[in-house]
Amino acid sequence: MWAQRTIRLRERPRRFHLVGAEVLEALPELEQVSVGILHLLIRHTSASLALSENASPEVRRDFESWFSQAVPEGAPYWTHTLEGDDDMPAHIKAALLGPSLTLPISDGGLALGTWQGIYLCEHRDRGGPRSLVATAWGE
Amino acid sequence: MWAQRTIRLRERPRRFHLVGAEVLEALPELEQVSVGILHLLIRHTSASLALSENASPEVRRDFESWFSQAVPEGAPYWTHTLEGDDDMPAHIKAALLGPSLTLPISDGGLALGTWQGIYLCEHRDRGGPRSLVATAWGE
Amino acid sequence: MWAQRTIRLRERPRRFHLVGAEVLEALPELEQVSVGILHLLIRHTSASLALSENASPEVRRDFESWFSQAVPEGAPYWTHTLEGDDDMPAHIKAALLGPSLTLPISDGGLALGTWQGIYLCEHRDRGGPRSLVATAWGE
Repeated sequence: MWAQRTIRLRERPRRFHLVGAEVLEALPELEQVSVGILHLLIRHTSASLALSENASPEVRRDFESWFSQAVPEGAPYWTHTLEGDDDMPAHIKAALLGPSLTLPISDGGLALGTWQGIYLCEHRDRGGPRSLVATAWGE
Repeated sequence: MWAQRTIRLRERPRRFHLVGAEVLEALPELEQVSVGILHLLIRHTSASLALSENASPEVRRDFESWFSQAVPEGAPYWTHTLEGDDDMPAHIKAALLGPSLTLPISDGGLALGTWQGIYLCEHRDRGGPRSLVATAWGE
Repeated sequence: MWAQRTIRLRERPRRFHLVGAEVLEALPELEQVSVGILHLLIRHTSASLALSENASPEVRRDFESWFSQAVPEGAPYWTHTLEGDDDMPAHIKAALLGPSLTLPISDGGLALGTWQGIYLCEHRDRGGPRSLVATAWGE
């Protein structure tokens, strides 16, 4: 069994957002899979996907704080500055966290840990809507 | 061919540990696969999996040193401090390294490079046992 | 459908390089796949693969700048220094960016975003040729 579709996530502000419920709602076919894999790719180079703590909004705020000080805007070594101060740091942050998630499916649902949630990591001030390719396969 | 199982790794101290032999021992079915993929997901948000140098214990010590200075405990920007000083840095480190590995299977074994080993990256002082979901598919 | 092969990338200088065209040229079977996945693993611990901006050479230069200041050579905490000043930082950088890419195939090609390109991230001064295992499956 194979399924593939594009999921459009509405524009969100620069920050880390829980989007797992929204992603799963777009993939009703997962319920038919007893064992398989869901792969998600974000088709952008200034936003990323991650799996992290799904309970506390403070955790997501602290992600923003750490990444913004570790990859600072306005650093003297940036040469690609044409598209705004937030652009080049966004590329680095996106590469550090990665553009995709590969997740096990078990008995019709994702086999994640209790505290794991899917983050959309929006690294641009105005990134616009974001597009994912979701691919699922299994039996 | 599909196989999926949960692997429990005993509690280990905060540090980077080679766990490839232990993981493979739990997956005897890989020997039947001529070409395929093994996917490992750690079901936690304060520990991660990585692939790195499998020979020198100094490399794993230096991983701990770098990550602990790059994501410092007690930094002024942390607001999620309820679960201990090592908790929020652990979430960031886990996201930087990622919760999963996707590895090619060839002729009944993992097709890794000579120097590549599977790391359990334990970012908490007392993380407890860790649970992996291992999913393998192929022909 | 399964295909698996080794791809050898010629030696390149320390830096971030676009290698997507070279990788795809080695995988003519992708054209037969209507929906599937391509998995690439670099079989080394001091080089990595990433997906990032495919247009501006400045972006790739800024990647080198950021990673080289974030993971500095000659830092006092390195103990694994036997193989050269660039060795231990290369292991860290490689783990941060990751050794593999998992990419959706759609209608005979990779379903990437317009601006996404495959980077070979060479973290050693003289890393030598690099070997990838490419595995594709689908229908």
